[in-house]
Amino acid sequence: MQSLTVIKIGGNIVDDESALNAFLDIYARIEGPKVLVHGGGKLATRMAAQLGIETQMVNGRRITDEAMLPIAVMVYAGLINKQITAQLQARGCDAMGISGADAKLIQSHKRPTEPIDYGYVGDFEASDVNVVRLQQLLEIGINLVFSAITADKEGQLLNTNADTITSNIAVALATKYKVALVYCFERKGVLQDINDENSVINTINQENFTQLKQQGVIADGMLPKIENALAAVNQGVDKVCIKKAEDLLDIKAGTTIQL
Amino acid sequence: MQSLTVIKIGGNIVDDESALNAFLDIYARIEGPKVLVHGGGKLATRMAAQLGIETQMVNGRRITDEAMLPIAVMVYAGLINKQITAQLQARGCDAMGISGADAKLIQSHKRPTEPIDYGYVGDFEASDVNVVRLQQLLEIGINLVFSAITADKEGQLLNTNADTITSNIAVALATKYKVALVYCFERKGVLQDINDENSVINTINQENFTQLKQQGVIADGMLPKIENALAAVNQGVDKVCIKKAEDLLDIKAGTTIQL
Repeated sequence: MQSLTVIKIGGNIVDDESALNAFLDIYARIEGPKVLVHGGGKLATRMAAQLGIETQMVNGRRITDEAMLPIAVMVYAGLINKQITAQLQARGCDAMGISGADAKLIQSHKRPTEPIDYGYVGDFEASDVNVVRLQQLLEIGINLVFSAITADKEGQLLNTNADTITSNIAVALATKYKVALVYCFERKGVLQDINDENSVINTINQENFTQLKQQGVIADGMLPKIENALAAVNQGVDKVCIKKAEDLLDIKAGTTIQL
Repeated sequence: MQSLTVIKIGGNIVDDESALNAFLDIYARIEGPKVLVHGGGKLATRMAAQLGIETQMVNGRRITDEAMLPIAVMVYAGLINKQITAQLQARGCDAMGISGADAKLIQSHKRPTEPIDYGYVGDFEASDVNVVRLQQLLEIGINLVFSAITADKEGQLLNTNADTITSNIAVALATKYKVALVYCFERKGVLQDINDENSVINTINQENFTQLKQQGVIADGMLPKIENALAAVNQGVDKVCIKKAEDLLDIKAGTTIQL
């Protein structure tokens, strides 16, 4: 099986021009076919504020109401997606910026309005990913840059969680490729001691995960991340890495989640 | 040679939701590979105004300054492009929304600042179109939806004239396909008598063009349109049609410019 790298970057890179440029320098040098998924960062919220649109939040999560949806589409699938794509091209990486709506790559459905109405938000499963099309594009040498926008079968655009897109694409493509899924993180990896940047846990598997959870080493926001990573490797992804963007080319760096 | 249809729609369709839906209903039914190029319409200007950005004009043409460029990218390559693409998918047409920056489909250069500085505006020739990539995408059954954004080789995004994109793509692809280039127009075609919607001139070629120009029948804004159409057929495009969107499936409707 050919190798494929799927990488997720979030707001800490997308919002910071120099961090983004440094990331793209390294990303362009990764060999083999690759898929980059970018989150949106704070630009959509800032743009909404400038347009006088109030960002509705519930339980710390943003509601994508009718006023916010076009802003999310513009910022994620438009500005950020095309800037990253053009900058990768300038670095010799043949990138193509897309969303789930393009070539029916991801068909999602609007999240049910109960118990909480998140508005125009899309959910989908790995089985909703158009593996045939993705493989065709990768095979002709196109490196895909995904924005976190999808559409349902009626053509309604929907704001979609970038982590969900990343893991579902990785799982779907694991039927065709040996997939390494990488989450770029602010820290060097999952830390044994949160105050010691050099206490990176090299490997997490189902066995030590239970221990680490009981010890409280993996808690809070890290808990769902690791659970999702374990779910991905249980569904065929070869390995999931959590590391700093600057360590992308160092295969020993960061935390690796494997079976 | 296989047939290929390249269609341009402008603000009169993009800005009008019911006109756009009617167009997409018809467009989805056109057989064979096809490329749609959409202009931006008035949304970018409206968005700029809402953000308190003044639209700079010189000789009736908009300047794409540093504040306007991200808005053009967001609106054209983001919102309009993804809305059209998702709506075509909902109509069973396997569309993919792209810009010239994607997969290096069009490499442009920033327009010289003399005699007039139009700002971040891109120019390019038919020879700058990536024919190999376009053909690969068309051959796997993807119908391309182009926004009028390109990038230069340094990765600078540039606002680009949608008519230029349309005709350059048509000319470039004419080496591989029998290309019909269609401009969707507010009227039934080029009119002999501007006050009579039923006076459509069926065919224009180099010979009667000279006459029609001398008679003043083709003048003002129509003059460069016909000159560009004649230039396209002189460079290998099979035919250029100017017609109403609702007449797209009627091959006898409108004005046809041919050798």
